[in-house]
Amino acid sequence: MSEDFNTHPHKRFNILTGEWILVSPHRTKRPWQGRLEKVAEEKRPSYDADCFLCPGNKRASGDTNPNYTNPYTFRNDFSALLPEGPKEEFEDGLLKASAETGICRVVCFSPDHSLTLPVMNTSDIVKVIRKWKEEYASLGSREDINHVMIFENKGDMMGCSNPHPHGQIWAQLSVPVEVQKKTEHQKKYWERNKRSLLGDYLEQELKSEERIVLKNEHFVALVPYWAIWPYETMIIPRRQMQHIGQLSSEEENAYAGILKQLTIKYDNLFQTSFPYSSGIHQQPTNGQDFPEWHFHMSFYPPLLRSKTVKKFMVGYEMFAGPQRDITAEQAAATLRELPAQHYTQE
Amino acid sequence: MSEDFNTHPHKRFNILTGEWILVSPHRTKRPWQGRLEKVAEEKRPSYDADCFLCPGNKRASGDTNPNYTNPYTFRNDFSALLPEGPKEEFEDGLLKASAETGICRVVCFSPDHSLTLPVMNTSDIVKVIRKWKEEYASLGSREDINHVMIFENKGDMMGCSNPHPHGQIWAQLSVPVEVQKKTEHQKKYWERNKRSLLGDYLEQELKSEERIVLKNEHFVALVPYWAIWPYETMIIPRRQMQHIGQLSSEEENAYAGILKQLTIKYDNLFQTSFPYSSGIHQQPTNGQDFPEWHFHMSFYPPLLRSKTVKKFMVGYEMFAGPQRDITAEQAAATLRELPAQHYTQE
Ligand SMILES: O=P(O)(O)O[C@H]1O[C@H](CO)[C@@H](O)[C@H](O)[C@H]1O
Ligand SMILES: O=P(O)(O)O[C@H]1O[C@H](CO)[C@@H](O)[C@H](O)[C@H]1O
Repeated sequence: MSEDFNTHPHKRFNILTGEWILVSPHRTKRPWQGRLEKVAEEKRPSYDADCFLCPGNKRASGDTNPNYTNPYTFRNDFSALLPEGPKEEFEDGLLKASAETGICRVVCFSPDHSLTLPVMNTSDIVKVIRKWKEEYASLGSREDINHVMIFENKGDMMGCSNPHPHGQIWAQLSVPVEVQKKTEHQKKYWERNKRSLLGDYLEQELKSEERIVLKNEHFVALVPYWAIWPYETMIIPRRQMQHIGQLSSEEENAYAGILKQLTIKYDNLFQTSFPYSSGIHQQPTNGQDFPEWHFHMSFYPPLLRSKTVKKFMVGYEMFAGPQRDITAEQAAATLRELPAQHYTQE
Repeated sequence: MSEDFNTHPHKRFNILTGEWILVSPHRTKRPWQGRLEKVAEEKRPSYDADCFLCPGNKRASGDTNPNYTNPYTFRNDFSALLPEGPKEEFEDGLLKASAETGICRVVCFSPDHSLTLPVMNTSDIVKVIRKWKEEYASLGSREDINHVMIFENKGDMMGCSNPHPHGQIWAQLSVPVEVQKKTEHQKKYWERNKRSLLGDYLEQELKSEERIVLKNEHFVALVPYWAIWPYETMIIPRRQMQHIGQLSSEEENAYAGILKQLTIKYDNLFQTSFPYSSGIHQQPTNGQDFPEWHFHMSFYPPLLRSKTVKKFMVGYEMFAGPQRDITAEQAAATLRELPAQHYTQE
């Protein structure tokens, strides 16, 4: 990287979406007099009688959860997408709409209400990954599902309304815009080079090491050059795979391992259960071939300075484009140097 | 609109950005057990000795504000963009960056610390609009400024760190991505029809009235068909103007009037000083002609259900695409029916 850019405003190009982001490395010097987030730090019990997601409990819908002991999935009681519905397209002058159908599911990571990924056993995280694979395969094989979005909102700061360890899956008829952008840019590169864009990017990052946070035999976690969120990271498999269904059991273990290690780093950063949204980007499930796709998982965490001060993506960011206050290199160095042991288990 | 779409999930097309958004009208039925925002409701004094923006006070930089009586602008003490800096482009394999320069300014709307737009006099809002015009003209005329972004972050929920009524201007060398998208789509329409895309859209909306919130002789406020935020609105001038510099003094008055009326509606919605980010999208200032541009001001407010429950743009929204829980028509009807008098001044 040009040395000047360590200290001067510049913009960086996201090779996956084709968009630029503004970086203002000098800007964390400003004092913060704005909002402080409230943080709920209570130690949670392993079972909470009022929790909709704990085994054996009644949900909002009236259904009762089984006494599950492994990751458990069910149809979201308040699904944003529904499998049945009108099929029509609508156009009237400059108004254009189209029916959308889909299925929303909830994935409980563990029966234990008190856990989060960083404090789960690696072998239990493997079970979560296998559940994701199962869901991706069964939802993706449906005629009416062309994309399966697996994600987690962690922490109430990220709109998560229940602290029980869980994620969501929204599977739908059309391919969402973020995935379309990533398909387009990977495809262009594939057609020109017959190589994985993300694979080549990973190779370059592994040479420089500047933005690498963690690595094992099968996966690398890094702060992408074009990161938007202060401590945004990406987990990339070394081997090009279009989707998680292609993971070998050895790779599942390595994935679980790096997931645990990365989320430990996150919790250790501000000594708090670190809020984030994470999501797995992979190939659409519309039956076409996507030789260009290289699946990856991204983490978008809002915190910037401490467990109570987040980065606000507001005004300029909403109307002009993304802007960040620390460089990807600074963020990666900070994460890299954090202990590998969870701060509550020292 | 197809009747089915009042109750069923569907997606809508944004004619200005070319992007789809997912609408789930049935979804507000779900109970909310998530985060409640804290709300600061204290009545503020007209002058606060600790405020960086009040007349006569010392700022963080050490500079002292004059005893201003009209809207007052100054260079942001913690600017994200700086006018001087490296000019280089950087490319190394798949890493691509480019220097960015610019100027960040702060616009104090009033010397009175206690005010906000909805409780200011229309004639004082006119002064703010004139200040915006001045800044747009002087920044925009610079060789090194090709885009001028005028915006306001209101409320600490929107990352605003000081309640003194103020907005910001970030002016820069390159044209930001959101403005590029809007240029592209307006241009395509202009080339095909030699008419303003937004002008034609406005005409259609005025016929149906479904999404209109307010109108006067020169401006209309509506909830766009493709709105993302629950109570998102857009103020559109009836006459096609590329930028605010073209406003006649009569139009300035009408603009100020609708700004006041709209922000009163917002405050009345949940009987709170309503948080939002607002921004004025207008033509770039790179010296080229933009016959397609039709300037407009958008409001992106986060609140969904009450003054303490906001819409979280997280997980699915970050990784897939925007999603909303009430329809634009519902939001417009709610806003339309609210009283025209501010709730604190009844
Ligand atoms: O410059 P301010 O008001 O301190 O900062 C606020 O607005 C900026 C521009 O939208 C954002 O980048 C910041 O995240 C936000 O906190
Ligand atoms: O479905 P939940 O967890 O209640 O809701 C959360 O995640 C959804 C998907 O990212 C968002 O649309 C909601 O705004 C958020 O509160």
